[in-house]
Amino acid sequence: MARLLDRIEHPGQLKGLSVSELSSLAAELRATIIDTVSRHGGHLAASLGVVELTIALHRVFDSPADKLIWDVGHQAYAHKLLTGRRDRFETLRQADGLAGFPRRDESVHDPFGTGHASTSISAALGLAKARDLSGGSHSVIAVIGDGALTGGLAFEGLNHAGQDGTALVVVLNDNRMSIAQNVGALSRYLSRLRAHPAYYRVKTDLGHILHRVPLIGPGAAAWAARVKDSIKYLVVPGALFEELGFTYLGPLDGHDIGQLEAALSGARQMGGPVLVHVVTQKGKGFRPAENQPQAFHGVGPFHVDTGERLNLSNGLSYSQVFGDTMVELGARDGRLVAITAAMPEGTGLASFGERFPGRLFDVGIAEGHAVCFAAGLAAAGLRPVVAIYSTFAQRAYDQLVHDVALQGLPVVLALDRAGLAGEDGPTHHGAFDLAFFRQIPGFTVMAPRDGDELRDMLAAAVALPGPVAMRYPRDRTTPSGRPLKALPLTGEWLRDGRDLGILAIGSMVKPSLAAAGLLEARGISAAVFDARYVSPLDSGAIVGAAQRFELLLTVEEGTLAGGFGSAVLECLVAAGHEPRVRTLGLDPDRFAGQGTRGELLSQAGLDSEGIARSAILARDRVLQAAPGRRDR
Amino acid sequence: MARLLDRIEHPGQLKGLSVSELSSLAAELRATIIDTVSRHGGHLAASLGVVELTIALHRVFDSPADKLIWDVGHQAYAHKLLTGRRDRFETLRQADGLAGFPRRDESVHDPFGTGHASTSISAALGLAKARDLSGGSHSVIAVIGDGALTGGLAFEGLNHAGQDGTALVVVLNDNRMSIAQNVGALSRYLSRLRAHPAYYRVKTDLGHILHRVPLIGPGAAAWAARVKDSIKYLVVPGALFEELGFTYLGPLDGHDIGQLEAALSGARQMGGPVLVHVVTQKGKGFRPAENQPQAFHGVGPFHVDTGERLNLSNGLSYSQVFGDTMVELGARDGRLVAITAAMPEGTGLASFGERFPGRLFDVGIAEGHAVCFAAGLAAAGLRPVVAIYSTFAQRAYDQLVHDVALQGLPVVLALDRAGLAGEDGPTHHGAFDLAFFRQIPGFTVMAPRDGDELRDMLAAAVALPGPVAMRYPRDRTTPSGRPLKALPLTGEWLRDGRDLGILAIGSMVKPSLAAAGLLEARGISAAVFDARYVSPLDSGAIVGAAQRFELLLTVEEGTLAGGFGSAVLECLVAAGHEPRVRTLGLDPDRFAGQGTRGELLSQAGLDSEGIARSAILARDRVLQAAPGRRDR
Repeated sequence: MARLLDRIEHPGQLKGLSVSELSSLAAELRATIIDTVSRHGGHLAASLGVVELTIALHRVFDSPADKLIWDVGHQAYAHKLLTGRRDRFETLRQADGLAGFPRRDESVHDPFGTGHASTSISAALGLAKARDLSGGSHSVIAVIGDGALTGGLAFEGLNHAGQDGTALVVVLNDNRMSIAQNVGALSRYLSRLRAHPAYYRVKTDLGHILHRVPLIGPGAAAWAARVKDSIKYLVVPGALFEELGFTYLGPLDGHDIGQLEAALSGARQMGGPVLVHVVTQKGKGFRPAENQPQAFHGVGPFHVDTGERLNLSNGLSYSQVFGDTMVELGARDGRLVAITAAMPEGTGLASFGERFPGRLFDVGIAEGHAVCFAAGLAAAGLRPVVAIYSTFAQRAYDQLVHDVALQGLPVVLALDRAGLAGEDGPTHHGAFDLAFFRQIPGFTVMAPRDGDELRDMLAAAVALPGPVAMRYPRDRTTPSGRPLKALPLTGEWLRDGRDLGILAIGSMVKPSLAAAGLLEARGISAAVFDARYVSPLDSGAIVGAAQRFELLLTVEEGTLAGGFGSAVLECLVAAGHEPRVRTLGLDPDRFAGQGTRGELLSQAGLDSEGIARSAILARDRVLQAAPGRRDR
Repeated sequence: MARLLDRIEHPGQLKGLSVSELSSLAAELRATIIDTVSRHGGHLAASLGVVELTIALHRVFDSPADKLIWDVGHQAYAHKLLTGRRDRFETLRQADGLAGFPRRDESVHDPFGTGHASTSISAALGLAKARDLSGGSHSVIAVIGDGALTGGLAFEGLNHAGQDGTALVVVLNDNRMSIAQNVGALSRYLSRLRAHPAYYRVKTDLGHILHRVPLIGPGAAAWAARVKDSIKYLVVPGALFEELGFTYLGPLDGHDIGQLEAALSGARQMGGPVLVHVVTQKGKGFRPAENQPQAFHGVGPFHVDTGERLNLSNGLSYSQVFGDTMVELGARDGRLVAITAAMPEGTGLASFGERFPGRLFDVGIAEGHAVCFAAGLAAAGLRPVVAIYSTFAQRAYDQLVHDVALQGLPVVLALDRAGLAGEDGPTHHGAFDLAFFRQIPGFTVMAPRDGDELRDMLAAAVALPGPVAMRYPRDRTTPSGRPLKALPLTGEWLRDGRDLGILAIGSMVKPSLAAAGLLEARGISAAVFDARYVSPLDSGAIVGAAQRFELLLTVEEGTLAGGFGSAVLECLVAAGHEPRVRTLGLDPDRFAGQGTRGELLSQAGLDSEGIARSAILARDRVLQAAPGRRDR
């Protein structure tokens, strides 16, 4: 049977559909999303939850004239399918395919790109004020989850928008989840709101009532104001948002297209800042995801009937090795506590929380607070470990400088998914961590080459007297099971050689060893050094290497601008050398794209073949420049 | 007459004072603060506003057993005077003197250092949870201004604390100001609260009332809950905070010690999170500061009777040149808009706002939002300029990467007070901006050598198609008055020489020229290059310089880790060179201290003498290493 979805080339076409057609369309959207994600992986549960909301938004508003911003954006799959990208949906999250998030360069229906949480209200207000200055009258809509609403940036946006008073629609997509169960006082507040009957037509009536409150006697005006407030609170459940200057509409059934359309139409006409509170179910329409929304937040390929995962890889994720080691260390040291920003599962910390109740803090999507709170814990004598994806640590940069490093507090940052994150693409790569952490005075910055070294590094990190950042990739590893051993504050030569020295850090150590094998087959003898630390650098070993080898090649899975290779250069010139060094890493002039991690590493020349190629090229140039050197 | 203040060695001694003695003490504190700041400069208005609050806090709580965190901390002068630092108060903000902000390494009465806004609730919650885990029972108190409360980090802290439920006292010091007049919906909400009668004894009575609400008939329970909410809102003015899980007490007269003590004692005993709303007057007790709190926020020396400023320097501040140029450019291009985070005066943007109503956005203390909002404005076709102190730009790092650069949006960051900020010390230096901005793909990063070049650079910046950061110092300059001229995307040789090439950026160009003069007197001929851009680097000129000179010296007022010098090294090795370069800049292993900007530059070897010294030292080493080179 021909699908309705196949006729939709433009969201304007939705307006002509009947109620029963909309219901069919919703089912088709879900089936398409489930089918595609089951084969290629992706963000499933969030997108399934907003199918009806997406339809209702596109029926009430006129994209691209009206501007629709999806916070985080992993829930925008139905939006992509309805805005001219159906034919390419099969390429989602693959190299050169559709992005997993909205992107300005992908469609005019994506007026602002997203990926990280809590940006949509700020960005939408920017679009709205630009509209006002240019005399436009279109609508601007931000769709934000209750999880993302806990981010401070979202509050900053609400605070500005509420005072400014310009027309702006914020749709609060309340699914009671961040990635994990949502936390925080705001979350509790929303759960109280959900118990209230819907409020979205009373506004005018209320105005009448309030105008009739009698004003008699001294102090009556103030009293009347309070009575008015009180009546408002009696009738309007969303008082917190009303206090911030928003008109509150809701709570609404997020799977009832008719109800959604009525409220959104009201919001559109109302003018001023409006918050539409929509209650949705994450994973809606796919039983396994409804039952386990956290497991189906971001998934790899799965069996489309049972939800059973396919193609599970060997070994353990670095996250899991980290989490297991935290449990081991936590049993030794009661001062060890852990902090996550809404990702107890994703960071591997869930087991630590189960084993040590009260010692795992899930602070919600609030990375700045996670780090500042950790600094407070450390100032009081505890040993906090903040586990966070590298890309999200960017959100706490100032707290790392101002609250942690400036006070020399022993906070450990465990930076997961450092380097190339894979299919999530440019918003999610952790390309800058080595570079920006090593700039902060006092931070020890390190990266393990494998699971065993991660374990030793974590043990060393929680024993150091100052701040530490340890970064590790989105990859799998197989720890040997040996006991923890003391880690020196130096790197380690893993392979000897004559012709050049490869200085590698973290995830690039093993590919560099493999590259040395490839080079040997070409008659080039390369030594390989596991630097372990980017700060403090093992300057003794590095200066020694500069004296010993006629060429050094640095290799890192991070930006070349100010990264590990740059640190090696600084070290050598500070020691009075004229470094003969080539640096290999991520292109400093562009953001890496999306694809599997393997594809992206290969594109960047950061697999064993690429490293060998760079070594040969660099060596050829050195020999050309000074041919006599070959005989040294 | 002997002062009471001179007898106070420890805050515990306050508990024995009578009401009239407290009043005298408050006057003595104010006189001491006014006298010291009038002679040396400092933060005046904020500290004058909290004298009574400081006394009340130290009478109710037992520092250092109880932990008191001052948000931002520039209001902690009375706290310093009462906690054993009276004798050193004269050294405030001077080299090796007392810090202008609380510091852990200065006193046990400073349990957590501050400087940037909005951190105190997060940090205090960390101290409180550490207390809980170790079985302690002391109080933890965060004192936060209504301005700092608009920062998203403060909201993240409230959200976590409100849910957690542990005992924590947040004192909201509501003076209706950030540095400028406060903005945002929260600010309007607080002004409504201030009109309410104080509420801090009704809690128990309210419980009685609520328990007596009759429950009859179907749906009565839900209705009763709403009626209870309504009654609560009728009686409790601080409903917004109550919704977030805090008990609200206030509003209180912040200059009535008795009233403050009663409320704080109540908060201490209450358990759980309590917000005490205190209304104070910024500048209280010094008429010029009461009348112009913004002018007396942070001040240089002034006449103690009239408030008239002393020792005004020649020329204009870079901020003023920036602001004037914004007005000039804004008249040419209607798309130009400006954003400040609560500092229209400090950034020089006030005149732009007066000239172009509706085109200056003061978003409050909310740097992340400032940048993300600017990205939204740019996405809609405007040309936003975000003017912000370099140190505060750290708070928007992720928005710079994720919202601006990743989308290639033409947002200009005007980074004031880059480099060494002077007396405000380590929390306020802008040491990292060159290093972290140049890592972000697509950002043009530049620094003018003087006011004329700032003007040309700003004109160039707002015409570039992508993101730009321009950094300039806390210094004065004298523009020539010449018209704007087009700025090429290259650096400029300002002086020729034979023996070495000095590559300088921004504020270091003129001292480098002066250094070349000193070197000439020593028989060394140094060329000087104004690099202008750190990204994209003028690689043609720099590679040419490496070929021409036997030694290059890079000079920057920023960290050496990943900074300008590091960029020069990267450029040269990428071009196949073995760079003979020495780098001069801020020590990457420590935070610079406090003092005048001149003192700090001299300490860092970044004045003309220091640069000349470094050049001589570097040249001697090069000659030692290869004596034959002298004859080349």
